[in-house]
Amino acid sequence: MRHVLSAPQFDKAELLEILSQAAEMEKILITKGNSDMAKGKILATFFYEPSTRTRLSFETAMNRLGGKVISVSDGRSSSAKKGETVEDTMLVISGYADVIAMRSSEIGFAERASKTSRVPIINGGDGPGEHPTQSLLDLYTIQKQFGFERPLRIAFVGDLKYGRTVHSLSKILRNFDNFSVDWVAPKELDIQDEYFDPVKDRKWNELSDEVLKEADIIYMTRIQQERFDDRSEYERLKNVFILDAAKVSKMKSDAIILHPLPRVDEIATDVDALPQAKYFEQARNGVPLRMALIARALELI
Amino acid sequence: MRHVLSAPQFDKAELLEILSQAAEMEKILITKGNSDMAKGKILATFFYEPSTRTRLSFETAMNRLGGKVISVSDGRSSSAKKGETVEDTMLVISGYADVIAMRSSEIGFAERASKTSRVPIINGGDGPGEHPTQSLLDLYTIQKQFGFERPLRIAFVGDLKYGRTVHSLSKILRNFDNFSVDWVAPKELDIQDEYFDPVKDRKWNELSDEVLKEADIIYMTRIQQERFDDRSEYERLKNVFILDAAKVSKMKSDAIILHPLPRVDEIATDVDALPQAKYFEQARNGVPLRMALIARALELI
Amino acid sequence: MRHVLSAPQFDKAELLEILSQAAEMEKILITKGNSDMAKGKILATFFYEPSTRTRLSFETAMNRLGGKVISVSDGRSSSAKKGETVEDTMLVISGYADVIAMRSSEIGFAERASKTSRVPIINGGDGPGEHPTQSLLDLYTIQKQFGFERPLRIAFVGDLKYGRTVHSLSKILRNFDNFSVDWVAPKELDIQDEYFDPVKDRKWNELSDEVLKEADIIYMTRIQQERFDDRSEYERLKNVFILDAAKVSKMKSDAIILHPLPRVDEIATDVDALPQAKYFEQARNGVPLRMALIARALELI
Repeated sequence: MRHVLSAPQFDKAELLEILSQAAEMEKILITKGNSDMAKGKILATFFYEPSTRTRLSFETAMNRLGGKVISVSDGRSSSAKKGETVEDTMLVISGYADVIAMRSSEIGFAERASKTSRVPIINGGDGPGEHPTQSLLDLYTIQKQFGFERPLRIAFVGDLKYGRTVHSLSKILRNFDNFSVDWVAPKELDIQDEYFDPVKDRKWNELSDEVLKEADIIYMTRIQQERFDDRSEYERLKNVFILDAAKVSKMKSDAIILHPLPRVDEIATDVDALPQAKYFEQARNGVPLRMALIARALELI
Repeated sequence: MRHVLSAPQFDKAELLEILSQAAEMEKILITKGNSDMAKGKILATFFYEPSTRTRLSFETAMNRLGGKVISVSDGRSSSAKKGETVEDTMLVISGYADVIAMRSSEIGFAERASKTSRVPIINGGDGPGEHPTQSLLDLYTIQKQFGFERPLRIAFVGDLKYGRTVHSLSKILRNFDNFSVDWVAPKELDIQDEYFDPVKDRKWNELSDEVLKEADIIYMTRIQQERFDDRSEYERLKNVFILDAAKVSKMKSDAIILHPLPRVDEIATDVDALPQAKYFEQARNGVPLRMALIARALELI
Repeated sequence: MRHVLSAPQFDKAELLEILSQAAEMEKILITKGNSDMAKGKILATFFYEPSTRTRLSFETAMNRLGGKVISVSDGRSSSAKKGETVEDTMLVISGYADVIAMRSSEIGFAERASKTSRVPIINGGDGPGEHPTQSLLDLYTIQKQFGFERPLRIAFVGDLKYGRTVHSLSKILRNFDNFSVDWVAPKELDIQDEYFDPVKDRKWNELSDEVLKEADIIYMTRIQQERFDDRSEYERLKNVFILDAAKVSKMKSDAIILHPLPRVDEIATDVDALPQAKYFEQARNGVPLRMALIARALELI
């Protein structure tokens, strides 16, 4: 079965195939608005942990494919409260739906669900673990802008220690040899060694002019206050890593700024109208990308 | 874009056009039950504040038009909890849906949402602010019974000071010159001067026989205990403004009783079976009216 | 109107008709996956008390019939919180939908709702009262395995005193003369006299080898800790009534094990892979069974 459990499960050929299928889906959205491809099929969105954006993106994708949706969005399944295991719940839900998109705050949950499910599971985020559809839509956004031929410098900025999306995206970028990475974080939130390539990468403790000028892609993430014992340290650092229009003016004109959203104040709103701001387009790219993953799971493509 | 943000945004010509489109939609409901007009389109219902009735009415309308629905019904968006602004949330959601119906407890929320949304916003109530679709379905119910030719006396009864639906409906009725208003409220909850027309209107502090006998339309609203410092004052007044079968027997036979619902005890259940009771039909009128507004927003009509 | 309020409302002829219609629906699911039978129709699922499994099963059924769904899943209606009666709520909701499936924690709630509803009500469980669709899917599962010709011995095991599903199923089985019942429960949770047939039934205080060997059907239910004053008594008894692979090895090879789910630990997971384990298939049978009930309510069959 075509489960989607983690970003690194895909090799380069599969990644390129998925991106090409997402591009096909985007063409359908632009020319016809929707498809009847999944007519009669049901997606279950099963979100133990609420996530407006991700759930609605999956449901939009299924609706645009002509399928239907059943949904648990309230964060806790009534069955789970009665003591049912995820294995049992998924065995039952997979007797209703043709494909399941799920989220949980517990690492490895989607993997466990896939053991008993009778239909494909798509992991919509399992706590600090994986969020593969986010990484794939990040990759799709990068491909649309640059392709994978020319050398590209991507700067990951913010919370590199705990940032799930940073870890997943950086892992799948290693499938392509045209990326070198600038890791930009306060010392407390530095990237772990396993992600750092000493040959191609650089580390920074501020969002320096050099980083800004050389970056093709800046991938911003939020620094969360709860990571710091010292509140004043947080306040000081937070501002160092904010991206505003003044900083963006130093960037290349064809560089792009990405963010997994929601954005709080790590990107100033004066950036939103600049040509480099691609984070809302990035969110929209989630729809064709998830259409492709659902269609693959249903073996329609 | 055809946002629906407030009742007073529409002039008389537009109001009549909307009512006529609602009548067309009602004809479709009666003859065919549903339409394929909005096939492939998606409505997002985004309710920061829960509202069973209004949300389900919008979703029914979109389903009867042949479209699909994605929904946030749990009163708080997970994105909002993470600190995302409504402007950002709406920018993202409007990348998924073709039209958005929203509710919030915060005045001006729909207006703010409309600033960034890429698709039309329909305001499903913004706290003490506006609830335009309620006013339009009220107007549609009045038109179906009486038209706008003959002089009509409408009595607004109950909480006239805080009643959002009273304010909105009375404002749009001023587009038509055939209405005179009886304002019936305890002194504490009297109508503000800006709504009162000294030439055509009258004020009352009880639901008198004169009001009952002369009214073509009685628009009931609930008096809420929390508006009073003195509980005994509330108990005394509450009963004065209750409409029961004995009082209805004094009304004209072709007069109608409206109520935005939910009704608690301000209309006794012995009124429900009387011919003047139109409040449940009024609620049902919300479906064709909202079908018309959605179809307008999608530029299908 | 074709309300479904309680299991005993159906006589034998109606039960057989419903089961035959469920079999037709299952054939549609297997051969085509779905139908357009209910195109343009709307099911409202109105769950005052959350129930993931039952709600999703109803919604799946309606989607597989080609219809649409509007839903209140959050356990409390915002209207109810404002003081609206269920009679008023149902009058309004039945102005939107063509059929309503509802659950409440309050006994008799669906019956009350049916008094004012303009469309058929299907009871999805009213607290300690009735849960007719569960009983019907239990019966359907039994019929699929055995039919109603040969004598069958069914053992109800666990909480027979409070178990709603046990009460309902045992009542409808009395329509068929081929069943004799073994009632297996701790003394504290014994079956009431009204359900016990002294001619055909037997009572047991343990899950004995004799019961295991002779049963054609074992219907397991959970023993809840809150039923016992003495925790140690609960711990002792709980284990006596657990079904595991060792016990199942004593059963007939064509016997079946049913459970209304969720299962906690009253059936060990080592039973799941055994041929007698039918409880997940039983849950899946809820979809064609509910398709039949919805199609009947809509007078499509």
